[in-house]
Amino acid sequence: MELSNTTKWRIRRYDGTAIVERDDDIAAEFPLTLKLGGEEFATLVCSPTNLEELVVGFLASEGVIREAGQLKALTIHEDKGFAYVELAHGLTISRDHYAKRFIGSCCGKSRQFYFHNDMLTAKTIMTRTRISAEQCIRFMEELQASSAEFRSTGGVHNAAIGTPSGLLAVRTDIGRHNALDKLFGYCLMHRLRTSDKVIAFSGRLSSEAVLKAAKIGCGIMLSKSAPTDLALRLAEDLGITCVGFIRGGEMNVYTHAERIDFGDALTLW
Amino acid sequence: MELSNTTKWRIRRYDGTAIVERDDDIAAEFPLTLKLGGEEFATLVCSPTNLEELVVGFLASEGVIREAGQLKALTIHEDKGFAYVELAHGLTISRDHYAKRFIGSCCGKSRQFYFHNDMLTAKTIMTRTRISAEQCIRFMEELQASSAEFRSTGGVHNAAIGTPSGLLAVRTDIGRHNALDKLFGYCLMHRLRTSDKVIAFSGRLSSEAVLKAAKIGCGIMLSKSAPTDLALRLAEDLGITCVGFIRGGEMNVYTHAERIDFGDALTLW
Repeated sequence: MELSNTTKWRIRRYDGTAIVERDDDIAAEFPLTLKLGGEEFATLVCSPTNLEELVVGFLASEGVIREAGQLKALTIHEDKGFAYVELAHGLTISRDHYAKRFIGSCCGKSRQFYFHNDMLTAKTIMTRTRISAEQCIRFMEELQASSAEFRSTGGVHNAAIGTPSGLLAVRTDIGRHNALDKLFGYCLMHRLRTSDKVIAFSGRLSSEAVLKAAKIGCGIMLSKSAPTDLALRLAEDLGITCVGFIRGGEMNVYTHAERIDFGDALTLW
Repeated sequence: MELSNTTKWRIRRYDGTAIVERDDDIAAEFPLTLKLGGEEFATLVCSPTNLEELVVGFLASEGVIREAGQLKALTIHEDKGFAYVELAHGLTISRDHYAKRFIGSCCGKSRQFYFHNDMLTAKTIMTRTRISAEQCIRFMEELQASSAEFRSTGGVHNAAIGTPSGLLAVRTDIGRHNALDKLFGYCLMHRLRTSDKVIAFSGRLSSEAVLKAAKIGCGIMLSKSAPTDLALRLAEDLGITCVGFIRGGEMNVYTHAERIDFGDALTLW
């Protein structure tokens, strides 16, 4: 069975004066249940492509593994919607830690909002990689041009990783965090160096999105959408440059602007 | 402490030729940890308004309660980000059921994707309530006009409930499912009859959104966005009319079109 991110659905289209019946492209939504050492661990509702990367990236995001080599076996049964995972060394963190909020006094002011497994896996980014404002805009344009599914269904999010001068990989999912987990899985499976890379994202810059960038190890995150306040406080703490609302040749730089090269732009303040 | 859905952030705005520093409105992202009978139950990352409704709607969505009266006490400590809940009769479903996928042979073809607690709480909708195509378009316009935060921050989702002829309540959240849970909480706290109502939603029609409509008890769901295939299969099974891409006076009807009155529109098939 070859799964696709889109499927067809018979719809009635109304344009104000007439109705027609026609087939439309619809985003596919696929529940993948993860079994870890025989035990049910999580069900990811996702777009059914790049499922190995999704599993690897999700487990790394959750702090279960740190590198792809820590998986002894990964088998995906697409027709049944199950992924079977065997770890090389057994689970390294306790299940009790999942979704437990960690309120510590040892760390920055935003860190109280971290979850415990985020504390263990999110790294502060120290990279000196820089990107020009023009490159930010071009990177986002390339991401949008490469995402055929979004144009046909309107129902998916895209995440890309690349160097400041161009895309390396684009991953697509109906779940915004799944798109980032697929990228994370891609990086781990290809042992990609990430500190000199850039992430572009079609979704909102939420705290979870910024934490994923920190876990992946990328210091620059570009988005066509808006950020949240918690995301920006975490980005300040974690050393991540957040650029949002990249649209129509314009953009907003929210945090760590030192990584953005504005070139000859006039500074009006 | 009075919490708001938006906050200010100092940004650098680049328009292609110049950069300016200015204060921008940002969507607030607030982690609310739910303690049920003293035990940590879940952390909802949300917009910090209508928190009581969020808690009530979330617990009802999860199948923990069926009506607001099943709560003995609900106290929210906004400054600490905790909600303390005491139930009148103790938890009615086992924690083991959370996130366990239910694959049964007793029900419709899409039901295999239900989670166990969804099986218990999602109802098949039998209502004869109808809405005209013009009312769908006007309902969505009213929803968008009423959401000031979206225009200022670009970072929130809106959900509204009303009769076919107008809005009753609009709820806003950075989390799309939180916006629907707040509506659910509103309905329960006001003992609102829901079978003759309509829900409008700014987010995508995902399986989770359709399941929420079924749990709330509404048979008509309007959206300006795209649906997923699983959402539509569930909507067919559960008797929910899904209308998507309501934009610029046009719309797509995906399921149970019998509830849509197209008036004098030409039928071109």
